[in-house]
Amino acid sequence: MSKVSLPQGMRDFDAETVQKRNYILTTIRKVFELNGYQPLETPAMENLDTLMGKYGDEGDKLIFKILNNGLNDPKNIEKANTGFAAMMEGKNNASLTERALKYDLTIPFARHVAMNRGTINFPFKRYQVQPVWRADRPQKGRYREFTQCDADVVGSKSLWNEAELAGIYHNVFSGLGLNGYVLSINNRKILSALAEACGGANFFIPITIAIDKLDKIGIEKVQEALVAAGLSADQTDFVTKYLQISGNNAEKMQLVQELLKDFPEAIKGLEELKFVLHNSHEANIEVDFTLARGLNYYTGIIFEAKAPAGVKMGSIGGGGRYDDLTGLFGVPDVPGVGISFGVDRIYDVLEELQLFPASIEQNIKALIFYMGEASAEYCFKLVQKLRANNISCEFYPEQVKMDKQFKYADKKNIPFAVIIGEKEMETNTLNIKKLSTGEQQTIETKDLVDFLDKN
Amino acid sequence: MSKVSLPQGMRDFDAETVQKRNYILTTIRKVFELNGYQPLETPAMENLDTLMGKYGDEGDKLIFKILNNGLNDPKNIEKANTGFAAMMEGKNNASLTERALKYDLTIPFARHVAMNRGTINFPFKRYQVQPVWRADRPQKGRYREFTQCDADVVGSKSLWNEAELAGIYHNVFSGLGLNGYVLSINNRKILSALAEACGGANFFIPITIAIDKLDKIGIEKVQEALVAAGLSADQTDFVTKYLQISGNNAEKMQLVQELLKDFPEAIKGLEELKFVLHNSHEANIEVDFTLARGLNYYTGIIFEAKAPAGVKMGSIGGGGRYDDLTGLFGVPDVPGVGISFGVDRIYDVLEELQLFPASIEQNIKALIFYMGEASAEYCFKLVQKLRANNISCEFYPEQVKMDKQFKYADKKNIPFAVIIGEKEMETNTLNIKKLSTGEQQTIETKDLVDFLDKN
Repeated sequence: MSKVSLPQGMRDFDAETVQKRNYILTTIRKVFELNGYQPLETPAMENLDTLMGKYGDEGDKLIFKILNNGLNDPKNIEKANTGFAAMMEGKNNASLTERALKYDLTIPFARHVAMNRGTINFPFKRYQVQPVWRADRPQKGRYREFTQCDADVVGSKSLWNEAELAGIYHNVFSGLGLNGYVLSINNRKILSALAEACGGANFFIPITIAIDKLDKIGIEKVQEALVAAGLSADQTDFVTKYLQISGNNAEKMQLVQELLKDFPEAIKGLEELKFVLHNSHEANIEVDFTLARGLNYYTGIIFEAKAPAGVKMGSIGGGGRYDDLTGLFGVPDVPGVGISFGVDRIYDVLEELQLFPASIEQNIKALIFYMGEASAEYCFKLVQKLRANNISCEFYPEQVKMDKQFKYADKKNIPFAVIIGEKEMETNTLNIKKLSTGEQQTIETKDLVDFLDKN
Repeated sequence: MSKVSLPQGMRDFDAETVQKRNYILTTIRKVFELNGYQPLETPAMENLDTLMGKYGDEGDKLIFKILNNGLNDPKNIEKANTGFAAMMEGKNNASLTERALKYDLTIPFARHVAMNRGTINFPFKRYQVQPVWRADRPQKGRYREFTQCDADVVGSKSLWNEAELAGIYHNVFSGLGLNGYVLSINNRKILSALAEACGGANFFIPITIAIDKLDKIGIEKVQEALVAAGLSADQTDFVTKYLQISGNNAEKMQLVQELLKDFPEAIKGLEELKFVLHNSHEANIEVDFTLARGLNYYTGIIFEAKAPAGVKMGSIGGGGRYDDLTGLFGVPDVPGVGISFGVDRIYDVLEELQLFPASIEQNIKALIFYMGEASAEYCFKLVQKLRANNISCEFYPEQVKMDKQFKYADKKNIPFAVIIGEKEMETNTLNIKKLSTGEQQTIETKDLVDFLDKN
């Protein structure tokens, strides 16, 4: 007999969970579409080649690889042996595993753009909502299959895109009732100028990586990391001064302007921030010069969205501008900017703040009880009529005690029980009971559609 | 540089394709929900154990297996070698591949029911719309990743479920404009009686398999198969007589009743067919005694849906009643009935019959042109206002020739171009051009929302 369990880090989503997830996804999709982004879907599998080497050594290890089929077929045995030996030496080998599950949506998107560059209508605004897979160690809030939700525009360097994306964050979060969200914003150009001020471009990556960890490890450990990366005491002090800048958005920008006034890239970076702020009146934007974003491909404005104060949760979204999406696939000069929503985390935040509307789970309006063979056909015709009138409902399909039918309705969050015995059938009436209050009334059958529409 | 291609049998879905697929899926989901079915989602991966041995030897070979991660880690080398050796001998081995991609939705559903039987509210009406993966040889209309779309009710033996499912077929197909669909129906109880009439229950499977191929191989080859299975000439003649029954539904049922009058199971099967026919007034049901359905687990009513006459396409849906969904996982007595829609095939049929509504692709209503830096902020505020009024629209994000902006709108099927230069900005007017006709007019900016809502 088969073992009845799910693989580690994998989840079934029951009806309530699917409905709540769909509420989030529908809200996000709707906003993407209002902004002119169009859907793209890529397959679960990519060629292993397409994925390997794109996420760093650690990422490579977390990619789920798919075993080629038919390896034990006599004609494949040699290939299989060679492939297995290579894999054990830590090399990829298409004769053992040609394919792998996608690890994020960005690389498959880049692959799609590279493959279809001749026919794509640039600027290309696409959104993508799909699962990805990572062989990470499962833990609370981290799963091996999870949904990513990305919007990118590629083929345009205009900052109007950044302003639009800030607006998308605002409209999604306020649409979900998360009015207290904060959208942190910074510009990698300023971090680049900071590196220049501290000795040169070769410090850019170590400085960025160190700053990115500030929240988790604190300023002292960041200073240690900077020293370890080769910064002098003066340079480390300079970075510390930068990281300690505080005040409101205007004050902080003024202080950075003074600190990095000799570096044209910093001035450019600040201008870009001002542009986005000026054109995003509604969004709750907080300029945060300590925001770095780990990924190396960001080159301009970067975003990170945080849950309302009081909810313990890391970032619930992030993104930024990159110069070169498809260079890895031999297609240069495709700049773009994109954002992402963390659906699983947003789910947890809405749950914690009790922000899911109660109506989500009440999609079935009525259960018509089974009261015996004599009235069954009459009842079945009635449910079919309700459905034709766009009312979700059920007919309990067989003879069981009424108590059991009430329990069934209750567990399924069905608000109304409709009871039609032979007497009611003959008089074209029915008894309708509201399960939450126990309130019961008799109405004419022809009025049921109206009654359920209004209640 | 990475090879830029997709794995064999895998597809990217561009915006138009996603929108058309969503049109189908939304129609199906809507009907499922009207009928009280609720969504379930299971992960892409299952334990290999859960899947192997459920689909026959041929099926087992088509399951995509996932290589365990970290096999070349020194501590795993021995396990990896053992696992690889076992796999090469055709055995499954969890030390090489613990997991696999799901092959259909039925087995994961059975696994879910077995795991959650204590908390599930029976009769359990669930629907599931998810991709599955098979390492089949790709060919026209057959992909290695495709979407299945199932509705099942388990924990109920009532025939009202069958009547409801027939209604679901009708409402989905008529909702998609496929009014000429045909829903073939038969009962495995009648096939069982036929086997009994031909010498016994041990002929049930060979007879079913032979009949299932009738459409493809013709009556003579079916007869050969029956003889090869051990049926006598008389018995083969009897099956032939059964297969040649013709007429309208009532006439055919009458003829089967006469032919199999001595077999109570046939009489029971006919009664069930009559019940479903009687309670499915709307559905285009055709009783087809040659319908067999290949899968062995069906035990009662079986369905197969066909595209309207004139479209060359196999079945676009199918299903039936089974006695024991979860027996394989050690949980007996969970009878049920389910149906499935073939989304990829329905897509092809709608495309061939040109039944996709034109409105599907026109989701972005207007492109506001970029006419220079002076009016950009004004235009951006206007698009944000349109979006707040639920109108999908775009602001072209940078300075390019108008011709290029027209082409962009055209390729993206955007019906209206909105042009606001400095003069229009000062007078709060705008020029709006309908791209399909070239018709252009000047309106006040405050009237734009109304104009786009009405056009």
